[in-house]
Amino acid sequence: MVDETIAEAGEFGLIQRVTARLKEGPGVLLGPGDDAAVLAAPDGRVVATTDVLVEGRHFRRDWSAAADVGHRAAAANLADVAAMGAVPTALLVGFVAPPELPVAWAEELADGLAEEAALAGAGIIGGDMSSGPVLMISVTALGDLGGRAPVRRDGARPGDLLALAGRVGYAAAGYTVLSRGFRSPRLLVEAHRRPEVPYAAGPQAAGLGATSMIDVSDGLLADLGHLATASGVGIDVHRAAFPVPAQMRDAAGALGVDPHAWILTGGDDHALAATFPAGTVLPDGWSAIGTVREGSRVTVDGDLFEGSGGWDHFA
Amino acid sequence: MVDETIAEAGEFGLIQRVTARLKEGPGVLLGPGDDAAVLAAPDGRVVATTDVLVEGRHFRRDWSAAADVGHRAAAANLADVAAMGAVPTALLVGFVAPPELPVAWAEELADGLAEEAALAGAGIIGGDMSSGPVLMISVTALGDLGGRAPVRRDGARPGDLLALAGRVGYAAAGYTVLSRGFRSPRLLVEAHRRPEVPYAAGPQAAGLGATSMIDVSDGLLADLGHLATASGVGIDVHRAAFPVPAQMRDAAGALGVDPHAWILTGGDDHALAATFPAGTVLPDGWSAIGTVREGSRVTVDGDLFEGSGGWDHFA
Repeated sequence: MVDETIAEAGEFGLIQRVTARLKEGPGVLLGPGDDAAVLAAPDGRVVATTDVLVEGRHFRRDWSAAADVGHRAAAANLADVAAMGAVPTALLVGFVAPPELPVAWAEELADGLAEEAALAGAGIIGGDMSSGPVLMISVTALGDLGGRAPVRRDGARPGDLLALAGRVGYAAAGYTVLSRGFRSPRLLVEAHRRPEVPYAAGPQAAGLGATSMIDVSDGLLADLGHLATASGVGIDVHRAAFPVPAQMRDAAGALGVDPHAWILTGGDDHALAATFPAGTVLPDGWSAIGTVREGSRVTVDGDLFEGSGGWDHFA
Repeated sequence: MVDETIAEAGEFGLIQRVTARLKEGPGVLLGPGDDAAVLAAPDGRVVATTDVLVEGRHFRRDWSAAADVGHRAAAANLADVAAMGAVPTALLVGFVAPPELPVAWAEELADGLAEEAALAGAGIIGGDMSSGPVLMISVTALGDLGGRAPVRRDGARPGDLLALAGRVGYAAAGYTVLSRGFRSPRLLVEAHRRPEVPYAAGPQAAGLGATSMIDVSDGLLADLGHLATASGVGIDVHRAAFPVPAQMRDAAGALGVDPHAWILTGGDDHALAATFPAGTVLPDGWSAIGTVREGSRVTVDGDLFEGSGGWDHFA
């Protein structure tokens, strides 16, 4: 049975086997198996976001184990919920796969999704599966605001301080390392495979009075560009706030890459960037990295940073 | 610009153009454009379900216009929400498409999704897009129970009456007609392209004290089988409750098909089947079609119906 395929297991068989591996989260009033799930929404509002990952574009099976893909797919969505200042409560997962995919791959994917969801305090409450020519994972994440106002992208004001929770550049460095055919440094490769997302920092920032917040998924400068555009402000990032870690410096040197390009433009670490009123005392986990100004551009120490494009998923 | 592709428009350009076509639903507190949307959940619970549609498996571009595919993708999910006794409130949409897809196709898909959502009282609050080798549409629907208990699959009791709201067999007949190379009868072909879902009948049934309910998407007998299994009962369907409409009878005769195979085993019309305590007076839109018994099988006038398999999306 080790190599049993999902075509052999059948749609209902596969759904049963995957569902059996999931644990229900705390707010799940009715889990998978009916026409729809029912989830507690104690705040009277629900935060919702969705992302799709496509094999070959967002992940490669020879670079990432199934569980890693699950972690990444869940993290991308859970981070978006946290970036609103909400606590993630649940995931729903759409899964398309070639019929010859081993059942074990789908099961490990589900384990990765469920483990990452549990890290954020959420459970998997529903899903759907179909066959198709390529692996595709679509995740919807829901969250609860706990009485807080959602932290949007459009509230940054000149004079605010800019702060970051979580890592930037690690996943991009890991991607570059893998794409050049290497399997180490492990710290970077693992960062590409499984982001470490500071989920609790989102609600924490909302509680501290953050004026705006965004999940860093396209790259720090690109995402700050979205925030600057929405808020009608300029943002200056302080390069000195980003000392290059030793392993990243060594890898960059060996590959002939500017490590600050990874740090400032690399996506997929799912750090949270937020602006706070000047004078806000930042708690552990948040670091000041810049300032909000009048204007409309994102600069680094006052200058435009070359190559700050971010990702276009159709390019 | 008529044939502009989504690769030419770019990910952000396409998202902007599609988002501009959407109207926000009544409960939308924060629509698309931020990390996540915020939706009212006045009941303090949220109903959630997700479905994926893959080109070639769930739809064909030469059989269905983009708007039709949007209607079907939305309807499949909105019907699941209604089948819990909830009122749909919002959709989130994941969209994967080949780079050469015309922008106009994506825009018409969005129009179809939004129109169907509006029929059910919901808006589109979020989405994500990526390129991929095949068209894939993933929809998550959310809903509000309005203080009612969710109507599950496991509450049917022997002696209950079985009732149906909506059509069965029409979409399957349309599919057969199209697959044999015909484009008419129009009633059937249109039913395949755009289901007519009795959304309001779901909350109505909940209000009437329905003991169980299910969306008929796999085929009436197959879905009643799910309901019977969950409830630990048998169900007998009365064939006389399904007079064959003239256009279906004519098409079945011309194609050499048993029209009751369409009616009893054809999926994708998204009728709602529900059980009610004996003696419940059914309102307009609901028709008695059978009875709940002791046992575990689904029968038609007391006998097993041949070929009542339903769909397996990996087979």
